Amino acid sequence: MNKTAIIVAGGTGARMGTQLPKQFLLLAGKPVLWYTLQRFLESFSDLEIVLVLPEAHWELGNQLLEAYFPGKAIRMVVGGSTRFESVRNGLQTIEPGGIVFVHDGVRCLLSASLIQRCYQHAVEYGSAIPAVVATDSIRVVSGSENQVADRNQIRLIQTPQTFRTDLLLEAFSKATHNQYTDEATVVEAMGMPVYLLDGEYENIKITRPTDLLLAAAIIQQSSIIA
Amino acid sequence: MNKTAIIVAGGTGARMGTQLPKQFLLLAGKPVLWYTLQRFLESFSDLEIVLVLPEAHWELGNQLLEAYFPGKAIRMVVGGSTRFESVRNGLQTIEPGGIVFVHDGVRCLLSASLIQRCYQHAVEYGSAIPAVVATDSIRVVSGSENQVADRNQIRLIQTPQTFRTDLLLEAFSKATHNQYTDEATVVEAMGMPVYLLDGEYENIKITRPTDLLLAAAIIQQSSIIA
Repeated sequence: MNKTAIIVAGGTGARMGTQLPKQFLLLAGKPVLWYTLQRFLESFSDLEIVLVLPEAHWELGNQLLEAYFPGKAIRMVVGGSTRFESVRNGLQTIEPGGIVFVHDGVRCLLSASLIQRCYQHAVEYGSAIPAVVATDSIRVVSGSENQVADRNQIRLIQTPQTFRTDLLLEAFSKATHNQYTDEATVVEAMGMPVYLLDGEYENIKITRPTDLLLAAAIIQQSSIIA
Repeated sequence: MNKTAIIVAGGTGARMGTQLPKQFLLLAGKPVLWYTLQRFLESFSDLEIVLVLPEAHWELGNQLLEAYFPGKAIRMVVGGSTRFESVRNGLQTIEPGGIVFVHDGVRCLLSASLIQRCYQHAVEYGSAIPAVVATDSIRVVSGSENQVADRNQIRLIQTPQTFRTDLLLEAFSKATHNQYTDEATVVEAMGMPVYLLDGEYENIKITRPTDLLLAAAIIQQSSIIA
């Protein structure tokens, strides 16, 4: 079955406090995005990648692909002004049928095994949204008040959010605004359920400087083991 | 005003996969618990510490205090079979009046500044519960279904959960069971509101091996800066 990964790499580095967007920061000598792309290429030999980048980072993206992935099935698409628009721009370039993964470019620590589990789950159920239970207690804030929530009912959502391509294409064609924060909510807005599966605690979104420290430590340790 | 920190160090290392309980694992050559105790001692010169430990770790605790904190205002108390019971055992040894912090022993990366902010906030409002907004999207699971939640209304709760001592003593005296997962819920069960303040993203609870990696990386970086 066709497999396409839409990798969204639209961050500007605002929370990271760096000039270089975080997806291009170096981890053990290679850009964050290198690890993400590499993991997808490893997971399936017949997988195609659509890398969605802001126009401002087009040249950086080109250099990365030429340096590390010459001849690989990766094409670049210009992003939009929201995540929804960026993913839509990517979706407009892919064929119906098969399975599509939508992944945050800065979640560079996912395993090939997670990608494979998401694929199998999406083939079976139509969608696969990786999620983990929070380690901390949870409270729900409402105005100036707050109340404890049952931690076991709360899931922290990760990517790759994975779908039968036709389902996601239909959901995007029926979307009524462009502010959806992820693809699961686009599908949900169409009245379709989405299905969760176990994510990975290491599959963090690199957002703050400490996340980069953690990622470097994990990569360093895994290369010692390897 | 009297200041007491009840440091709960009851973990057994089940999720860490180690023989040594995680609060005694080494980070840059010192036990996790050393960093936690040190941070509290740094935050206020007149603060007393009650270290709550399972009986099985009593000797380890003694050795740590003798090696690193001789003559410091730290006393040990034996924990109970739940977190609630452990904290209650600690509370039974402290005087009314003043402010009490209840802190997870394995949150060793908090700053002295967070401890000081919690103190001021608890003096003013009666309680101070450090919390951060989740980085990930959030879903609420109910049976086999799940639904997106507004991430901006969800808070991940940290410690030190800080209270006017009299308020916490009263809440504990009125508690109707021993399964409360934190002190905020004990106070809330009495019908009293609790007040949140901004926590710190680095103030993680060391639970899994990657948390230890992150903690080591943060400590290494901060000592280079220092």
